[in-house]
Amino acid sequence: MATTHAMSTSDHPAENLGAQFLAVRRMTEELCADISAEDAMLQSMPDASPVKWHLAHTTWFFETFLLTPNLPGYRSPNPAFRDLFNSYYNAVGAQPQRDRRGLFSRPSLEQVRDYRTHVDRDMGKLLESPEDRLRDAILLGIHHEQQHQELIVTDFKHALWSSPLRPAWRRALKQPSAVSHPPSAKELGWIEFKQKEAMVGYAGNGFCFDNELPRHRVALEPFAVASRLVTNGEYLAFIEDGGYRRPELWLSDAWKIVQAEQWSAPLYWERNRTGFEGEWSRYSVHGFRAIADDTATPVTHVSYYEADAYARWAGFRLPTEAEWELAAHLQASFSGDGEGTFLDSATLEPQPTKGPQFFGECWQWTESAYLPYPGYQPMAGAFGEYNGKFMINQMVLRGASCATPKSHARASYRNFFPPASRWQYSGIRLAR
Amino acid sequence: MATTHAMSTSDHPAENLGAQFLAVRRMTEELCADISAEDAMLQSMPDASPVKWHLAHTTWFFETFLLTPNLPGYRSPNPAFRDLFNSYYNAVGAQPQRDRRGLFSRPSLEQVRDYRTHVDRDMGKLLESPEDRLRDAILLGIHHEQQHQELIVTDFKHALWSSPLRPAWRRALKQPSAVSHPPSAKELGWIEFKQKEAMVGYAGNGFCFDNELPRHRVALEPFAVASRLVTNGEYLAFIEDGGYRRPELWLSDAWKIVQAEQWSAPLYWERNRTGFEGEWSRYSVHGFRAIADDTATPVTHVSYYEADAYARWAGFRLPTEAEWELAAHLQASFSGDGEGTFLDSATLEPQPTKGPQFFGECWQWTESAYLPYPGYQPMAGAFGEYNGKFMINQMVLRGASCATPKSHARASYRNFFPPASRWQYSGIRLAR
Amino acid sequence: MATTHAMSTSDHPAENLGAQFLAVRRMTEELCADISAEDAMLQSMPDASPVKWHLAHTTWFFETFLLTPNLPGYRSPNPAFRDLFNSYYNAVGAQPQRDRRGLFSRPSLEQVRDYRTHVDRDMGKLLESPEDRLRDAILLGIHHEQQHQELIVTDFKHALWSSPLRPAWRRALKQPSAVSHPPSAKELGWIEFKQKEAMVGYAGNGFCFDNELPRHRVALEPFAVASRLVTNGEYLAFIEDGGYRRPELWLSDAWKIVQAEQWSAPLYWERNRTGFEGEWSRYSVHGFRAIADDTATPVTHVSYYEADAYARWAGFRLPTEAEWELAAHLQASFSGDGEGTFLDSATLEPQPTKGPQFFGECWQWTESAYLPYPGYQPMAGAFGEYNGKFMINQMVLRGASCATPKSHARASYRNFFPPASRWQYSGIRLAR
Amino acid sequence: MATTHAMSTSDHPAENLGAQFLAVRRMTEELCADISAEDAMLQSMPDASPVKWHLAHTTWFFETFLLTPNLPGYRSPNPAFRDLFNSYYNAVGAQPQRDRRGLFSRPSLEQVRDYRTHVDRDMGKLLESPEDRLRDAILLGIHHEQQHQELIVTDFKHALWSSPLRPAWRRALKQPSAVSHPPSAKELGWIEFKQKEAMVGYAGNGFCFDNELPRHRVALEPFAVASRLVTNGEYLAFIEDGGYRRPELWLSDAWKIVQAEQWSAPLYWERNRTGFEGEWSRYSVHGFRAIADDTATPVTHVSYYEADAYARWAGFRLPTEAEWELAAHLQASFSGDGEGTFLDSATLEPQPTKGPQFFGECWQWTESAYLPYPGYQPMAGAFGEYNGKFMINQMVLRGASCATPKSHARASYRNFFPPASRWQYSGIRLAR
Repeated sequence: MATTHAMSTSDHPAENLGAQFLAVRRMTEELCADISAEDAMLQSMPDASPVKWHLAHTTWFFETFLLTPNLPGYRSPNPAFRDLFNSYYNAVGAQPQRDRRGLFSRPSLEQVRDYRTHVDRDMGKLLESPEDRLRDAILLGIHHEQQHQELIVTDFKHALWSSPLRPAWRRALKQPSAVSHPPSAKELGWIEFKQKEAMVGYAGNGFCFDNELPRHRVALEPFAVASRLVTNGEYLAFIEDGGYRRPELWLSDAWKIVQAEQWSAPLYWERNRTGFEGEWSRYSVHGFRAIADDTATPVTHVSYYEADAYARWAGFRLPTEAEWELAAHLQASFSGDGEGTFLDSATLEPQPTKGPQFFGECWQWTESAYLPYPGYQPMAGAFGEYNGKFMINQMVLRGASCATPKSHARASYRNFFPPASRWQYSGIRLAR
Repeated sequence: MATTHAMSTSDHPAENLGAQFLAVRRMTEELCADISAEDAMLQSMPDASPVKWHLAHTTWFFETFLLTPNLPGYRSPNPAFRDLFNSYYNAVGAQPQRDRRGLFSRPSLEQVRDYRTHVDRDMGKLLESPEDRLRDAILLGIHHEQQHQELIVTDFKHALWSSPLRPAWRRALKQPSAVSHPPSAKELGWIEFKQKEAMVGYAGNGFCFDNELPRHRVALEPFAVASRLVTNGEYLAFIEDGGYRRPELWLSDAWKIVQAEQWSAPLYWERNRTGFEGEWSRYSVHGFRAIADDTATPVTHVSYYEADAYARWAGFRLPTEAEWELAAHLQASFSGDGEGTFLDSATLEPQPTKGPQFFGECWQWTESAYLPYPGYQPMAGAFGEYNGKFMINQMVLRGASCATPKSHARASYRNFFPPASRWQYSGIRLAR
Repeated sequence: MATTHAMSTSDHPAENLGAQFLAVRRMTEELCADISAEDAMLQSMPDASPVKWHLAHTTWFFETFLLTPNLPGYRSPNPAFRDLFNSYYNAVGAQPQRDRRGLFSRPSLEQVRDYRTHVDRDMGKLLESPEDRLRDAILLGIHHEQQHQELIVTDFKHALWSSPLRPAWRRALKQPSAVSHPPSAKELGWIEFKQKEAMVGYAGNGFCFDNELPRHRVALEPFAVASRLVTNGEYLAFIEDGGYRRPELWLSDAWKIVQAEQWSAPLYWERNRTGFEGEWSRYSVHGFRAIADDTATPVTHVSYYEADAYARWAGFRLPTEAEWELAAHLQASFSGDGEGTFLDSATLEPQPTKGPQFFGECWQWTESAYLPYPGYQPMAGAFGEYNGKFMINQMVLRGASCATPKSHARASYRNFFPPASRWQYSGIRLAR
Repeated sequence: MATTHAMSTSDHPAENLGAQFLAVRRMTEELCADISAEDAMLQSMPDASPVKWHLAHTTWFFETFLLTPNLPGYRSPNPAFRDLFNSYYNAVGAQPQRDRRGLFSRPSLEQVRDYRTHVDRDMGKLLESPEDRLRDAILLGIHHEQQHQELIVTDFKHALWSSPLRPAWRRALKQPSAVSHPPSAKELGWIEFKQKEAMVGYAGNGFCFDNELPRHRVALEPFAVASRLVTNGEYLAFIEDGGYRRPELWLSDAWKIVQAEQWSAPLYWERNRTGFEGEWSRYSVHGFRAIADDTATPVTHVSYYEADAYARWAGFRLPTEAEWELAAHLQASFSGDGEGTFLDSATLEPQPTKGPQFFGECWQWTESAYLPYPGYQPMAGAFGEYNGKFMINQMVLRGASCATPKSHARASYRNFFPPASRWQYSGIRLAR
């Protein structure tokens, strides 16, 4: 967390912080309002957590880091929660094994909702006139909860898909056909850059995570990034050209996993499913859809390995995070044009939006490893475990997805996942 | 199933069969009445299934083998259940992976209860005047459901214990202290047998499983079996004598697992737990209890490996299933003395009952492998998969436990589990 | 080991014991004479050991149990061997991990041969006038070495087959065609038995292992065993009838392994190998041969699971060990007719011999689990670990194979392997 | 391979290329001259290969890429070698499983040596007047063989240490005591850099690998690197300060492996070994030595995870590869001062040399992930698999070790291994 970049008092009065807190907390609950207690227990793989756990853990964050140390007389509804809902903070204490979170039948979803109410009420006391020294931790908790809003979507989508009946989460959505106005017909364009150097890292005076700092220079060679994301239709051409069967297109570790797990398409794609005989379909939160109906939509749920192989097949490469950040700053029509698809729209799947698609739709793999910026300093205390200790074995993604709250997106944001991960809304922007 | 041993008409008129069906179905529901939808989803290990799954699968059995083929116009509430709740019948169709049953958030517990009601109602039509050819399948379904009643107890106990808060299932039970009248003070006695031959296998005219037949001769040497089960107090002496650290007491495969899984006591035992400092306690469905308060109670949740090692340490051995069956026939005061602890009592943990303890309390490992009797014939059709295909890599247990319905117990009953299994109520009777 | 069944002085004078010792030791060396130091290091799976290890371990047995405790002033060439070549005797000390024996580049094969010479020379001193109390241990060492002679063949065959060039061990053998005089043309006959009881277990006054005792009664029902072993040709019919694709033919655990390891034929069989296009061939110690050239030869390298599935497909079953032993005693023309194929012939693969084939060719799976006989007593001391601790999770095989020394075979001999094992010369005799 | 940076004709006449070839081939054979056929078969883990395999594979490289396509009438001694000794070139064909190379008892070491002679002789014909178009491939083969010289040392060291007797490779070495003139007493110094930009990548006109190109600009912040490597003595202080027990010092993935594999010191270190009671010793190619006798020697056999944790504990960090390369160019007294320890000296373990220790002793972990330089182009054809496909999940090491041929070292050289790897001679240079 950027303690030196905390928001100025004028911009963020106490009322404002409290309003932000409440808005984010309410958004989480609205997101989960239609999820049953049984569905909220599902853990379909070690990387994904049950919805109930997300609801509790985000609450635990405020309790552990704000209420317990700072609100005199605060009493937890259950002191066992301190260990139970700790994710990975060794400085706080022991943690249950990550892959066993599906065994938390207790507390019940109802009790977790009571826990939220309890903590929100006492947070209200703290937010009445928050001390300056607490503002950063409160802001961090708010942005932390936004991150978990996205994970609720991706984890729950994976959970429902893993359950044998493969139910849709939401059926009612009237999803516009992506074929009638095919953006993929539009020739892929290129945005050229000649800068020899860029400044990278957060430069505003709002909130940012510690891993976006310090802002620093990066040397560049001339480059270009694609004018939009790779579409389902384009990716289908890669599949049909034998993309998943040609080792020369893949990194060595990638080829091992392609063979071991018999990958032949992005996660959630299925060939010859009942009702979609002879064609590819994909599972979405609204049920299965034919790929043929979505050829212009950005492809998503691809790993870094697949993004890299696709780029090699296409004769291009992925951008570095510095290239991406420069391009996003200069080109993204991000402010208020409303075209990107974010969590706020409740669409929950990428759309064939117009524009450069730097934000919304899906995160974009870069060819940069997730490593500290020069001079990086982790936050003090337990918050030091928030970002820094994960700076190994992961690749950076930039942008924001259809599951990201719009207010959470920014050009300097560094998302990161291991190169084989596919359950996030991750897609492909080409560079050269 | 013993088609040639079906019950006589006078003993079991149609009304009676219907009454049996209803009684068993109702008992299952009563057993689960206090289990929440969230608790009912827990699957703590591949061998154990969620309570919701048991509720559905036992219903599926009647739907698949009785209603669908025999009730004209029968309609399932959901045709997908045919695959979904199949356990292991290849003849019926594909089955979901056994270790993924915890992912069945759908159907909900409420829907499963509706499924039970639906099937019970239509079974009522079939039971009004059941054709003779259906009686065996109906009886099999009834006894099948009784088996799952026991599994509901053992699986749910394991599930709650696996969840991080380790809650009790039932708190209210007033469990009598087992120490005040210490049966373990009673010297272990021996029951001697000189028979040179025994008849083994079911001989009555009621129900039995196919694996209890044919009744056949077995040659015997003189032997004796213990007058009661091994107690917690006696087993504690084995532990304190270094039993889990002495390879010479263990079978080779047993010693590997003792080391790999660091066994040092029966499943559910814990040393130095908060509240039980300096002593052993054990998890029960009523919460943790000190071993010191239960020294006279039969030890349970031991594997075959532990039973065998204990017997070797004590200078004895385990009985064969033939020895056990002969002894049980001749000695068990089984008929109506009411001393054994069965599922019917809702105690759900072994008690220090008087008497020879052949039935109730816990199943008793024998040193017999689970193999077909001479001339064994599996049932015809899909029912042939009920027992026969598991006749390898398992050891026979005899008797009945505190989780067995009393009407389900009989001297010829062959229970079977792999030698490392510990989550059943399995205990030790010595022989020499 | 049967201490009470040791050989009488008149039958086995000291000279005789020494001659036996030397003959067996020499036979081991002749067997390995054409194996290079590099080949002798191969360990292709945890269950199989390198030839060099077998040469050393059999020597270690005499050093550890005879020379060290009994020959005054005995000095080992290397005291580290005591731990290094211990197989599984916890009473002797620690053992290297079994699956790491392929890492024993030191000592060299030459040093191991020197070790053998060293121990043989000092054993000569002990054998000049062996004390009576040592005779049993010496005999045990001799029979122990014979067991390892068989394992040298089976392990080395597996090792060469696992090496990528799949070389033959011995190329020169002129193997008679098994097709010209097709024994499989001979209708399979049945040998009927009506006895109601049999005596089982060793009854002679020579050597036997402790697991063959005590001799005891077993009750029988009328049965019949096949007049010969199942042939390659017959087994091929099972394969071609879809035997490996029909779950109803397999035990549940068997079907899991068939699918997980994609079994479609016995170990060493291969379809469409270069040079054998369009047909099945099998790897032998003499290289690959067409199955079509060996249809009358007993099928071998099948697991218990396959033997059981074949028997079910054929409408029969496997014999129990009591049935087998009775039949072998009454029917086997075992004494000196020379028809069975044993290690002595150096053929090292089963042959289409005439006669009932109870001994030689391949071991025969029984449907009996490997368990103690009534009243079984393991040998005292470390020798108690020889057999008893393996009495779980294994099935009994009876007879003897083409890799068994002829003098090692007897009707009461109990061989045992886990039901999935296939690298031994294991075959099928049907019963009904 | 840098085809555009191939050596000029004047610098490298044909004679010279042939001489280089012969010198490198001879050096390999000298390195292995004292390794027996049995020792040369050892494969102690999947990452490490047997010495015999290295001898064959380096030969295969010349046969496959030079002789077979370019020498008319070339005949391989065994066409099966083309698949057998392929490491990872999918463009060439299938490859044996990497972790099964220990099963190559055939061909024998003697046959592999004949293979080397055969290929060397025919390479002689090609080298008489090599066509220009072949020079790059020949040079690549030479440098490829140098890489395998280093791997022979590290893999063989690991193999001997893994064998139960843990023999030394070479005993005769008179290793000077590192304690009498303790360089660690010397205060660690810092070399400061103020440059705002550096040029990174190979700039000479000799040989380099494709991954060292293109040379490009990198932006820098002021930094300093340590004047020498971290010593055993300094690392011991980290251990004694609880370094391996404090999660806050470790990356998240690192802490998992520390716990799972119970790391408590660098690879090859052992506490309380017989002969070293109460102290730490370490296995070297010359046998075990007390750490106390080597406190001034650079610590080696540490993973990236340990290097990173040590740096965090010490209050510093690791250098980036750009920082390291700049520092090495400006500071390394690399040219002929003879202080660094290389393969050429046959010492095979790091020494407490004077000077900045940029080259020799051990490779130095950087905090840079192994990724392509901007504009990176893999070599054409199968050689494209040499480097590029490994650019994921690995960290860059710079410098050279005591097992690197001196002529193989250069400032732009990029070595790379996964962050958990410890069997290379990898050490720590601090930065800040």
